[in-house]
Amino acid sequence: MLLWGAGNGALFTDPRYSIQAAGESDCAVHVVRGPLFVSLMRLAARKRFKKIGFEDNRTSWQSWEQLGENLPLGASLEPASELLDPLRVVKSAAEIQLIRQSVLVNSKAFAQAMRHVRPGRTEFSLAAEIDYKMRLLGAEKPAFDTIVASGARTALPHACPTAQLIERNQLLLIDMGASLEGYASDMTRMAFLGRPGRKVRRLYAAVLEAQLAAIDAVRAGVTAASVDRVARKVLRGGGLDKAFVHAAGHGLGLEIHEAPRLGKRAAGSLEAGMVVTIEPGVYFEGFGGIRIEDTVVVTSSGCEVLTPTSKELLLL
Amino acid sequence: MLLWGAGNGALFTDPRYSIQAAGESDCAVHVVRGPLFVSLMRLAARKRFKKIGFEDNRTSWQSWEQLGENLPLGASLEPASELLDPLRVVKSAAEIQLIRQSVLVNSKAFAQAMRHVRPGRTEFSLAAEIDYKMRLLGAEKPAFDTIVASGARTALPHACPTAQLIERNQLLLIDMGASLEGYASDMTRMAFLGRPGRKVRRLYAAVLEAQLAAIDAVRAGVTAASVDRVARKVLRGGGLDKAFVHAAGHGLGLEIHEAPRLGKRAAGSLEAGMVVTIEPGVYFEGFGGIRIEDTVVVTSSGCEVLTPTSKELLLL
Repeated sequence: MLLWGAGNGALFTDPRYSIQAAGESDCAVHVVRGPLFVSLMRLAARKRFKKIGFEDNRTSWQSWEQLGENLPLGASLEPASELLDPLRVVKSAAEIQLIRQSVLVNSKAFAQAMRHVRPGRTEFSLAAEIDYKMRLLGAEKPAFDTIVASGARTALPHACPTAQLIERNQLLLIDMGASLEGYASDMTRMAFLGRPGRKVRRLYAAVLEAQLAAIDAVRAGVTAASVDRVARKVLRGGGLDKAFVHAAGHGLGLEIHEAPRLGKRAAGSLEAGMVVTIEPGVYFEGFGGIRIEDTVVVTSSGCEVLTPTSKELLLL
Repeated sequence: MLLWGAGNGALFTDPRYSIQAAGESDCAVHVVRGPLFVSLMRLAARKRFKKIGFEDNRTSWQSWEQLGENLPLGASLEPASELLDPLRVVKSAAEIQLIRQSVLVNSKAFAQAMRHVRPGRTEFSLAAEIDYKMRLLGAEKPAFDTIVASGARTALPHACPTAQLIERNQLLLIDMGASLEGYASDMTRMAFLGRPGRKVRRLYAAVLEAQLAAIDAVRAGVTAASVDRVARKVLRGGGLDKAFVHAAGHGLGLEIHEAPRLGKRAAGSLEAGMVVTIEPGVYFEGFGGIRIEDTVVVTSSGCEVLTPTSKELLLL
């Protein structure tokens, strides 16, 4: 996609997409048989562009080199992610509406899939069923590879589902998100097959307290780092802060990880209309991990938690 | 991942992956809390590396800039995709075995899902079911977004499934692939709900003839472009070559699109052990399209077609 000024844009694609491009685009479409970069730069030359910006965080070095080789005389290529990405951070009302729908589809798929969890099922097949339910409810696809981890594998914050059987008296972690009309949702919930012991209950209560405190701390104007700090402080009270090995949350929208990052060292402040996850977690190798995650919209006075799913430890 | 010399390598990751990295890697693992690039370049400095290669087609311009900012004094960053990518083009026996399994899972999922195709179903729900079957059969996920297109939408070579109903007396195109232990498969089959008319039968026969001729043309030593030429020539005989708007095939392996590309302008020759798709197709806006695609392994005397699914037009 090439854009210049308001309302001016051109889409370059190859003949495989000519019908779709004409149907879905409201800008000029150039269907090109040879290399796209050559045609793109030919148009830039015709328009006498002098400064050509590119999304440096989404453009490979190789593509940049090919753009450079076809650059019009006297023109320069300028990295423009720092200019473009901030335009996406605060979501419009229409975008928030799509994320809201994505969150609802995701929570509904979770509820439907969890009805069928029995000891002896593999992590793999539960993940497959979650994704299937999500699709039947209207998601294009999962927003990321669905995480289903059981027992000690819950200690892997980004576990891939395996053939491991879900067993009695074990923790079960589900981290899932839908992609709906391009917009992501993100939720983590914990279940336990049986009656959890004191340690699990204590850890769960601590993570939930941290998550609720972090949600309470979200408000337009506070720093992104302060939200992480609040969660970390609660966990430190229980001696658990060292086990909290990731950031308290991240923005999401067209991508599952977008600015802002709510980490210890994060720069910048929250603004109304940002959509972020709040997801503290603690992880102990050999024992397991616990994470609780919601998708929330930042408002001037606090935040709205979009995720409707109960945050009680789900007993199966 | 940082590699130097035979058997030397280091993996840099953040604390979310520390347990998994230790479990799955047979090289040194560096779990880093700050920016990975800084630590990576610190190791490069300690090892006194002078020339540091990077995968220029998989590294964003921004990452390249960050690597450069942390480059040891006197060292240089060199694009290395041209060196590294060819190492992947010819598959080992073990890799071919995994692709073979991926192809079989994919064909089995196709057979299972097609049993349930009835008029009135959406493209969307059939795509969801295909993906679900694939996962239950052992695939990690689809190798790409499964294409289910019906009626005139089959004219979109890379259609996204929609809420459109699959109806009687229409073409149905399914393009699907599994990802199994990281290895991709790729297959396209056509179905018709009812009794196809003369035009569909004629087009189908022409595409099938082109596909079989192209498969016949595959052999170690022939140019990649010659395979495309053979398919194009058959279609030209029926006046259909202008409707064949993409290349005759592409390599696949860890990614769904890898070298070699079997296109009109492709450079280079086929070698034994390459795994490629053979997939001619014709597309007519407003009417529909037909594509037939198999995954094949190049051998010294020809090729082995891995895809076991029948290539007759499936009548439902």
